[in-house]
Formats: sequence, C-alpha cells, structure tokens
Amino acid sequence: MAKPPLRVGLIGTGFMGKAHIFGYTTAARVFDLPRNIVLDTVADITDEAARAAATRYGFEKATSDWRTIVEDPNIDVVNITAPNALHKEMSMAAIAAGKHVYCEKPLAPLAIDASEMTEAAEAAGVKTQVGFNYICNPVFGLAREMIRSGELGEIRAYRGYHAEDYMTDETAPFTFRHDPQGGGAFADLGSHTLATAEYLLGPITRVMGDTVNVIGERPDGKGGIRKVEVDDVGRAFLRFQSGATGSVEASWIATGQKMSHDFEVYGSRGGLTFSGERLNELRFYPVSAIPGRDGFRTILAGPNHPPYGEFCVAPGHQLGFNDLKAIEVAGYVGAIAGLHDEPFNFRAGWRIQSLVETVHRSSQQERWLDT
Amino acid sequence: MAKPPLRVGLIGTGFMGKAHIFGYTTAARVFDLPRNIVLDTVADITDEAARAAATRYGFEKATSDWRTIVEDPNIDVVNITAPNALHKEMSMAAIAAGKHVYCEKPLAPLAIDASEMTEAAEAAGVKTQVGFNYICNPVFGLAREMIRSGELGEIRAYRGYHAEDYMTDETAPFTFRHDPQGGGAFADLGSHTLATAEYLLGPITRVMGDTVNVIGERPDGKGGIRKVEVDDVGRAFLRFQSGATGSVEASWIATGQKMSHDFEVYGSRGGLTFSGERLNELRFYPVSAIPGRDGFRTILAGPNHPPYGEFCVAPGHQLGFNDLKAIEVAGYVGAIAGLHDEPFNFRAGWRIQSLVETVHRSSQQERWLDT
Amino acid sequence: MAKPPLRVGLIGTGFMGKAHIFGYTTAARVFDLPRNIVLDTVADITDEAARAAATRYGFEKATSDWRTIVEDPNIDVVNITAPNALHKEMSMAAIAAGKHVYCEKPLAPLAIDASEMTEAAEAAGVKTQVGFNYICNPVFGLAREMIRSGELGEIRAYRGYHAEDYMTDETAPFTFRHDPQGGGAFADLGSHTLATAEYLLGPITRVMGDTVNVIGERPDGKGGIRKVEVDDVGRAFLRFQSGATGSVEASWIATGQKMSHDFEVYGSRGGLTFSGERLNELRFYPVSAIPGRDGFRTILAGPNHPPYGEFCVAPGHQLGFNDLKAIEVAGYVGAIAGLHDEPFNFRAGWRIQSLVETVHRSSQQERWLDT
Amino acid sequence: MAKPPLRVGLIGTGFMGKAHIFGYTTAARVFDLPRNIVLDTVADITDEAARAAATRYGFEKATSDWRTIVEDPNIDVVNITAPNALHKEMSMAAIAAGKHVYCEKPLAPLAIDASEMTEAAEAAGVKTQVGFNYICNPVFGLAREMIRSGELGEIRAYRGYHAEDYMTDETAPFTFRHDPQGGGAFADLGSHTLATAEYLLGPITRVMGDTVNVIGERPDGKGGIRKVEVDDVGRAFLRFQSGATGSVEASWIATGQKMSHDFEVYGSRGGLTFSGERLNELRFYPVSAIPGRDGFRTILAGPNHPPYGEFCVAPGHQLGFNDLKAIEVAGYVGAIAGLHDEPFNFRAGWRIQSLVETVHRSSQQERWLDT
Repeated sequence: MAKPPLRVGLIGTGFMGKAHIFGYTTAARVFDLPRNIVLDTVADITDEAARAAATRYGFEKATSDWRTIVEDPNIDVVNITAPNALHKEMSMAAIAAGKHVYCEKPLAPLAIDASEMTEAAEAAGVKTQVGFNYICNPVFGLAREMIRSGELGEIRAYRGYHAEDYMTDETAPFTFRHDPQGGGAFADLGSHTLATAEYLLGPITRVMGDTVNVIGERPDGKGGIRKVEVDDVGRAFLRFQSGATGSVEASWIATGQKMSHDFEVYGSRGGLTFSGERLNELRFYPVSAIPGRDGFRTILAGPNHPPYGEFCVAPGHQLGFNDLKAIEVAGYVGAIAGLHDEPFNFRAGWRIQSLVETVHRSSQQERWLDT
Repeated sequence: MAKPPLRVGLIGTGFMGKAHIFGYTTAARVFDLPRNIVLDTVADITDEAARAAATRYGFEKATSDWRTIVEDPNIDVVNITAPNALHKEMSMAAIAAGKHVYCEKPLAPLAIDASEMTEAAEAAGVKTQVGFNYICNPVFGLAREMIRSGELGEIRAYRGYHAEDYMTDETAPFTFRHDPQGGGAFADLGSHTLATAEYLLGPITRVMGDTVNVIGERPDGKGGIRKVEVDDVGRAFLRFQSGATGSVEASWIATGQKMSHDFEVYGSRGGLTFSGERLNELRFYPVSAIPGRDGFRTILAGPNHPPYGEFCVAPGHQLGFNDLKAIEVAGYVGAIAGLHDEPFNFRAGWRIQSLVETVHRSSQQERWLDT
Repeated sequence: MAKPPLRVGLIGTGFMGKAHIFGYTTAARVFDLPRNIVLDTVADITDEAARAAATRYGFEKATSDWRTIVEDPNIDVVNITAPNALHKEMSMAAIAAGKHVYCEKPLAPLAIDASEMTEAAEAAGVKTQVGFNYICNPVFGLAREMIRSGELGEIRAYRGYHAEDYMTDETAPFTFRHDPQGGGAFADLGSHTLATAEYLLGPITRVMGDTVNVIGERPDGKGGIRKVEVDDVGRAFLRFQSGATGSVEASWIATGQKMSHDFEVYGSRGGLTFSGERLNELRFYPVSAIPGRDGFRTILAGPNHPPYGEFCVAPGHQLGFNDLKAIEVAGYVGAIAGLHDEPFNFRAGWRIQSLVETVHRSSQQERWLDT
Repeated sequence: MAKPPLRVGLIGTGFMGKAHIFGYTTAARVFDLPRNIVLDTVADITDEAARAAATRYGFEKATSDWRTIVEDPNIDVVNITAPNALHKEMSMAAIAAGKHVYCEKPLAPLAIDASEMTEAAEAAGVKTQVGFNYICNPVFGLAREMIRSGELGEIRAYRGYHAEDYMTDETAPFTFRHDPQGGGAFADLGSHTLATAEYLLGPITRVMGDTVNVIGERPDGKGGIRKVEVDDVGRAFLRFQSGATGSVEASWIATGQKMSHDFEVYGSRGGLTFSGERLNELRFYPVSAIPGRDGFRTILAGPNHPPYGEFCVAPGHQLGFNDLKAIEVAGYVGAIAGLHDEPFNFRAGWRIQSLVETVHRSSQQERWLDT
C-alpha cells in the first residue's frame, strides 16, 4: 500500500535551504517514513533562479513568488529557509492557508513575532518545526537518556558553549546578522546553547546575561562604514527548574573555532562532555568502584544510539551534519503523521527566542531576570 | 534540457547495499550530476524481500532473480552489493550484457577472478567501479594534493593502519569472512590500507607480509565448532616505486577500535597524520622557520577541500560515512558520462586484490615478493 | 667562588609542603641559582613528625614550634605550607623578624588579612612570594609573549576554567575547605583562574559573580551532619582594563575532571587554547593566508619555551607538576638575589584574594562590582 | 639512624648526564631511599668543564680523568653517561674495580660488547642498570599489571612505535648516531620499542626486520659530505613466547613527531593504547556488557598508579620526563640495597642490544630470525 505523499514547498535555497533539501532526500531513504516526501515547488528570488534550483534539486515546480507555494492546495508543508526577516510573514501566510510549517531558526528575529506565529499555528492546528540541528544528534539523545534515567545521579551543573570564528575578520562587511533587530552572536549561536541546555536539563528559570559588542563598525559593502551594535560574544549564568545551575557562552569571533557546539554535564554519579567538532563522540565518566581504572570514556556513536543504526550498522563510521538534518526531517514527518509530538515546534522556537531576548535584556539591565 | 537518465539495478541490500542506495540518493541531490539517477530495479533473495526493499528504498521494480537486472535492456548500471562469492558471476554476466558495473569491494575473493572480470570489462568497454569508500574523503584528496605538489617535500615514509574489533569475540560464529578463499582481516581491512597507500604515494613494488591467524576455531552456527584458518591480524612492509618505504597493518580483533583507518606520511618538508575515527580532520606539520611555533595543526574539512563545499558551505560541520559513499557515486557517474577517468575501476580493484594475495603469499613463504 | 647560602625554614609538610620541598630540590639542580639553597629547618605538628620529616627530606633541623624557625637568625626564607588559617600569623611573625616569606596560596582566607600581610612585608622590605603554580608553566609564558607582542592581534575575549572533582562525593566529610571564612571552590580553584587571567591579559576591572552552593551538608567526621554554605561551583563575567571581556568558572564537583585548568584567548589575528590535563601543550591558531591549510596547531613545550630547556634539551619530553613548582622556586630565589622583580608577591596574592571576594560579593548582591 | 651513603661518580654531563643528575636529586627527596645518595665526583672532558659541572650540579669533586672515579675506593656507583663508544671501556674498568655500574642506553653499540660487560658484571657480583626511561612510567606499570593479571584476557597482538623528527633535516651534519657501528634510528629509538614490548608482553622469540637508510649522505661538519649508511626508519614483525604477535617501528625522520613512544595492546577482554607525547594517559577499553556505554577511557596517572603518589597526592597533575628518570634511579638504589632485583640490568640491556642486531641482521638477510 502506497504511503500518502507529503508535498513540500521550499522557500530559499541558501546554506540552510540546501541542508533542508538534503535532509528531505536522505530522510526519505534512510528512514521508513510514514509519508512519501515529494519535493513539489521551490521558490527563489527570480524565476530563473527558481527554475535552476528546481532542476538542480529535483522539485517539480518553480516560482519566484513564494505565495504561490502558500496558496497551492496540493502542498502540505511550507519549508521556510528564506532570510530571517521574512520568517514571520511567510509563516503567518502558510498557517492561514492551513499548511504545516517547517521554519529554519530563528523562528523570528523577535520573540514577540515568534509568539504570534506560535499562537496562530496552534490555533490553526498545523504541525510546526523549527530547525535546531544539533539536538537531533544521536549522542545528544544518549546524553538526555543518561540524565533522565538517573544514570548520572543528581544533575548539578551545566556548561554550554558555541564558538565559531566567521566574524573574526573586522573587515568583513555588515550583513543581516548585524541587524540590531535580532542579530548578534548570541541570537545566532547562543540560541543553540540554550536549546541544547533545555533539551538536556529541562527548563531554565532565571538568567544573568552578558552580551558584548566587540567590533563596533564594519564596511557597509558600499564603500562606507556602518556602525555595529550587536554582540560578538554573549554569556549567561543559568538556573534550571531542576535546581541545577549552569552557564552558556557564544562567540562568532572565537578565532580558530569552527564548530565548537560543546556541553558539559556534571551529576553526582557521572559527568559528560561533548564537542561539536567531533559530533560522533560523547565523553562519559561514570563514578565507579575500581581504583585506578577510572577515566572519561569516549563513546563513539553507533547502532546502540538511535537512530544511528538507520544510517549505518557499524559503529564509529560517523554521521555528518547533513545526516542530523535528515533526522530532524524524519522527526517532523513522524509528527505530521501523528506518530509522536513535534520534536521542536514553534512554541519551542519561541521559547528559545524569548530566552535569547531575556539574556540580552538581563545584560542591558545588569541584573538577573526570570525567564 | 533534461539530463539523460542513468538507470540502476542494484543486487543486495545489506550493509553496503544500503550504503550504495544512500550514496545514489545523496549524490543525486548534492552534486549536479551529468546523468539523472533512477533507482530502477532491486534484487534480493526472495520476491517478498525484494518488493519490500523496492518500497522502502524507492526502486521502481523488484526481483528475486538478479539476472532480470542484467538482462533488462533499460538498465545502465548493475550495482553489485551481494555476497563477495557472487561478485564474479554477476559482474561477468553484466559485462556480457554491456552494462556498466559498480561492485562493492572486494572485486572478487581471488585475484585470478578479478583479473578475468577486469579484462572482460575492458574488452567490453564498459565503465567499472569498485567501492573503496575511504579514498573519497576530501581530506584524502587534500593529502594527495599536498604530496603531489611537493608541499611535503620528498616523501620518505608511510604508515597505514586499519583496526576494528568486530571479530574480537571468539564465540562469534564462523561467517563468509572466515572463508579460506578470500577471507581474513587483511583481505577485508588490509585491502583498504593498500588502496589508501597507493592512492597517496603511488605504486607499491615490493612487500613482505605477516598475516596471522589468532582465533583458530569458531562456532559454526549449528552447534558445532569450525576450524578457522584466515588471518585475524595482517601486516606488511612496503616498497614504493617512488623510493619511499612503509608499512601497513590490519586487524579485526583490535579490541576497542571501531574505525581506525589511519595513515601517516612523512616528507622532508612536512608530515601528515589521519585517523578514520575522526574522518574530518587531517593533522599537518609543515617544517617552518618560526622557533617555538611549530606543531601539528588539525585541519578541519571545509569548503576549501573539494567536494566538501557541495555538502555544506561552513567548515567543521563534518561529513559522515554515507557522504563519502555519495562522493564515490558522483565520481562514478561522472566517469560514465565521460567527464573524467574512472576513479577506482576494476583494474584498480584487481590491483588491490592482487596486492592482498601477494602479502599473504609473502607471509606464507616468509620472504619479500615483488607485486 | 661559592654562592651565598639561602637557608630555608619550612612549616608544614602536607601536599603542598612536599611540592615546595621537591621544588627547592629540583630548582637547585636544574637552574644555576644565584644562591645555594639549604634546607635548614622543618616544622611539623609534633617533634616526632618534624624529626621524621627532617630525616626524610634532608633538613638539618626539626621543630614542633614554628616560631623557632621565625626566630632563628640564620634562616633567610620562611616557607609557609601550613593550613591556610595560620598563614597570616606565621607570615606576620616572619616579616617582623625580617625574613623573606614564601607562602602557599591562598595568602590568607580573607583579603583584609592579605592586605595587612602585604603592607607589613612591603614596609619591612622583605621579598615575598605566593604559590600559584600554573602560571610558571613555560607554555603560559609563551601565551603571554604571544599576547603582549601583538602576535594574536587585538585581544578580544577570554575564557578560564578550573574543574576538578574531589568534592563530588557528598558523603566526603567537612574539611577546612568548607569553612565559610575563605573556603569554597571559587576560593580554592577560581583563584587560579583569576591569577591566570590577569597573568595573561592584565588587570580585571569589573566582575559579575555567580557562586553556588550545591552540597548543603556533609558528614562532620564525628558521626553527625554539618551544614555547608560555601560554593561548589563559581563563575564570573570579567572586564579587563585592556577592553577585553571574558569569563571564568571553577568547580570541585565536575565529575571526571582531574586538573582542567584551561584557558582560551581570542585575538583578531589568532586564538589560543590550553588544558591543564595536558600541561605541555598549547594550541595556537594563527589567522593565515593559505586556504585549506589552517587549523589549531598543537605546540609541544620544548627548549624554545624557557625555561623548559633547563630541564631537557628535547621537545615533547614533558615537564610535570613538580617541575612547575621548581620554576616557581627559581623565580623566587632570583628575586631574593635582586635579579628581577618578585614573580608573584604578597601584593599579587592579596589582589587575587580580593578579586575572589569581589566575585563572591557580586554574587551575593547580584550585581556587577568594580575590582 | 642515618642511612648509609651511596657515593656516585658520574661521567659525562650532556643531555642524559643531566637527566641522571636530576634523577638522583629528585629520587633522593621524593622516595624514602634505603641509601643516602651523595654526588661525589663528576668527570668531564677538561678539568675546567668538570669543575664547572661540579659547582653547577653539586658534586663534591671534579676530574677530567674518568679513571679517577673508577679508582676512588669511596665511590659506590659509577654512572656512565659518556658517549656510547666509551660505555664498554668505562664499564669494564668500573666492574673490575668492584663498582656498581649505571650506564645510559645503549649498553654498548654492539651486542658482543654488551655481553662481555654483562658477564663481567655478573661475575663480579655488582649491581647494574641500563637507562630505559620510559618503562618506569607509572602507566606502563599499570599496563603490565592489567596484562599479567588477566584483566585484558588473552593477549593477542601488540604494536609499538617510537617516532621523532630530529634527523628530518638532511642538512644536519653527521654525528656519532650515524656511525655504522651501532648507530641508526632503530638502535636509538627502536631499542625503546623492544624494551617496552618485552616489558609488557614478555620475551620476543622471532623477528623479521626492515631497516632502511633514507638520507644517504650528510655534511661532515668540516665542509665536506659524508656517506651515511645507517637506518632512518626501522620496522620489525614480532613473535612473543606467549604466542602473541606484534610489530614495532622506529623513525627519527617522522616530521612533526617529537616523542611518540606509543604502544597498543589487544587482548580478548580489553585493549590499551598509549602515546608518549601524553605520558600521563593510558587509554583502556574493557569489553563490557552495557550496550552503548563502551569506549576507550582515558586513565590519568594518579596515586592509584605507584609510584605516582610519591610525587603528588592528586591525580591528573602529571609527571614529567625527569620524574621518570627519578623513578629509574630509585629502582636502582633499591636493588643495590638488596630490596628487590635490578629493574633493568646489564643482561636486560644486552638483550635489547641483541634484539636490535637481530632485527638488523634479519633485514639484511631478508628473513625471519630467532632471537
């Protein structure tokens, strides 16, 4: 019996647009999804670009008007990988048309907009998803399982870190990421640290932020100079509902760091550390009783860590970034089919955006704030 | 203008069969291939299994008779991921039918068979490929470029290693991998070390082998015990045509090792080290002139290392094992389309098989042998 | 010509007392010191313990009364490795007697006491030193040189971390380290992170603290339970006079961590990372101009990093913790001989103690404080 | 009661001479040795150099004639850290004078000489020691304990490696290390791999060697060119009496490697790996029964690994190279005092020299040889 199709309309084919396309493609093969994914329509800036993308990536149709996708009665999912500033308008239109909406992070540059989007989606009863790639990593699932099962004992402390260096060069021009409305390192990368922190340890209840602008001006790309106000480094102290405390830090000027999405979890019976530059490894230190034999063990992702086994039957062979996106897609398709809850829906995306803003506000006011 | 289709018939859907299917799928999206890959027919042991695989993996047709694929005039490529013992028969039939043949390694358990297959393929003028996953790794390409360009100076010494532990447990039953005809750790894993060694440094001209059986008997899976004669560990000293010398070692009883496909290259101006468990990292030590600033640098795979950029625009985000298979597929499709030579054709596969046998023979005779 | 003797009286032979003794011993051989170190008198709790220590460690005399050392006109240096609570009384007496004083960290549990000690020492004109082992590491010197010379460009951000796990077990009894007067993880370990931060980047001008008690009670060692109020984890945001910002974190319940005295420095032209568990390695990422060749390089300590070469002429052979103490001793002896300034005198020790208290006060008041 | 003195006469104050001096010094403080070490006399090339060394390193007397030491009735131990070519003459004279002899490796450039030295020493009943630093490492002791106790199950395979790069530069001049009599990388570094292999797994019974000259000529230091015949890279396959097989490799042209004295041990119940550049870490993989929790654990040297605790009570603080030499000294002094057997006596040194020569002979003859 044929699976019902799931027709996808995708808006925007940049870095993350491609990642979503590859995610759909791989998920459809690797997982036995409940729906048959069809790449229906792709929207891009011009007709020509859209047609090229359709040919290149296997969409049936192309358009330069994203509303065509929203209005197409055949399309089930609207996939938004357009510039952040457009996420809201596109999502609201898609929701109004009864579409499921899969939006790349951030859900919107401002939490107030994310809240509207969330409420609209919930009122409409559509399934939503926001792309927070890293939490789909099988070893994140392993870490959460170890935390929740009590294997690490009482969880006491947390450290999160996301460091890259793509803004190190002060002569690199001003971009949308420097926009005072929703831009900055903490919104871009710190949001991942918060998503991971809550994924692993549960709700954050209080924060003390420290977000710092370092590079105060950049070329405007037109021969002039433009003032930059957003943070290049952001930090926060955290309180979790569970009683644990922690910290997160994000930087896009961490010279030499390419993908340090890292975390450390310390419990009374064990500790965990992870580094994003080695995304198939979880370091685990169990408190044990054999003197002289203790040490952090490097667990390599393998079939014992679902859904790794869907990709490969042998441990240590390693998943890549695009595979994580495929896992994210599979989770979303399962949710649309009613198999389980949405793994990371608009409400979750709003939550992160709200946390980011609370950290910023806390930093400006120089005081702790409830989340 | 639509690309011409490339119709694939695939035989066998185990570990490597799935890897090939994922490879075709990902390659078709990630790369702008010259042909439009169509998963035409899948063959499996029974009609039922084949139909299930067709549904699961998106083939148009299913069969329990692999000859159906070979005889189908619409099929362009016969993809053989069936048990090693069948590689020859299937390949010969496919070649006779004028098909391109993409065969998982080993090309055949015995070099004599691989030679027949190679000669048949060359006589027929079909395009062939043998799957040696690891050499498609972008950082292998980087390493080769550094070697060939002279960036490392004169290459003096090489070390290769492939260690896993899937045969550590002596109570695990006898399988086809223990078959005296073509089985053993060196054939299974040492073949990769030889393929990588020649990929990087060019032809090996002489070897001294040391292949060792450690676990002399295993359960036969039917309640009895079966004698095992194949090697569990294999080693070889090497001489390269270039004048460099080296060694390789392979083990499937290296307790704790999951995917140590490692190499080290030492030249007069620099050194390289690589470990398969961190497949996105190449360590590079250039001889330089700044006292106190030297050190192995960890190069993370990124867009500067083609074709990484096709998968992801950001460095450090990491490719996975299946991505390497997609690169392999893309190379083969390009060769079929006449864009470049076959990256690793039957002749190359025969070469490796022949080297493996020479190592074994050298070990038995306890003397150096020309290759 | 014989060097003048430098007669040392040492009080306390526990963990750090032994480290000092080994430091004196090794320094005297490894370095061509300007004074001839003589282990003159050792003081311990009882006459018997003191005599045993004298025999064991080669002191000429023994005493159970530390005042004997202070009052001995032949003794030049009073070395205090007694419990923290006694540092002040001993130091003040030694200073009053005109002795040079070398006191293990913390200089005193409270900054107010450290200030008195500092002022007394400066008024008396004696040479002082506080033991902050890690900054004597040759690769710390290398890091500072790279920062000061501009090799890393403008320094933008700093991260410090000191994590161990010796208090993870909540059934371990209350000790002096849990004393509300000067105890806690941040005083014990965070003090190191601050010392390193100022050593590398210069003065810290503002802090926002977050020090947290996790384990609220412990066995009192007499069959009862005792309330614990000190922090088990401490964090701070930092502002440096240079304009850089940063953070530090310390924990003694970081399950699995044994000696993570780590730092990261990010400048516009390069980045550095260091981990205390690999104390002979500095990772350095210079921004360079060769696409595809960048990466953190692991610099192994060697003769190019003074004073490593005094210990060993070959790089990569590694110094140990006790060697760092020998370097500390050598620096102190050089200062006494007038060859250079005191590397880390009482004023520096007071400074760190003061910073620690400011972090605590900031945490209690939940606001940023000037240092 | 005072310990009896152990008067040391030391010949040669180069790299290893200093390491021995530091070893005596540190051992005397760190360990409660049964004898009181006295640095009695130092011999160097000229009177002036010897006097300078005596002053610098604390010897009571100095001489430019090493025979003065041998003939001095007060001296107990003759410590030979002179050029290798002199080891035999000096040792034989010392033995003849009834001295204990502690000789840096190699015992002699040729095994035939080492055998004479051994027989003379045994006939004289003096205690001897040869310096093979690395096997004194506490984690080597741990590894051996794990192997011998059966914790790793049946030991199946071994890999040893010693790679440095101090001969990479082909313009570096000819030295005694290039002397055809006893020179070469395998004698210098491969000897360590063999010593470690036998230390861990017991006797090697058969070898197949492959020693290779790469740099065929070097400046002679006088403006001319000199032919070089010794090996720059050496390898061997091994058979152990226990039934295990293995390999070792040594190189002094391994560009970028500074101290890779590495080993891997694979048993039926566990695996070990070690790298000399991280001499305080042993990686241990026990076969266990918890799916998804396995991984190599990094054991950091600590007080549970004797004699680490003599140096430091806290784990992870790290020993250095000179500390290993102190452990070696302590073992020798204990043997002289009759507390235990000589840890690594002349017979053991001869054994290694003999193995080295067998590897060379095997390489020349291109066949396996019994040891």
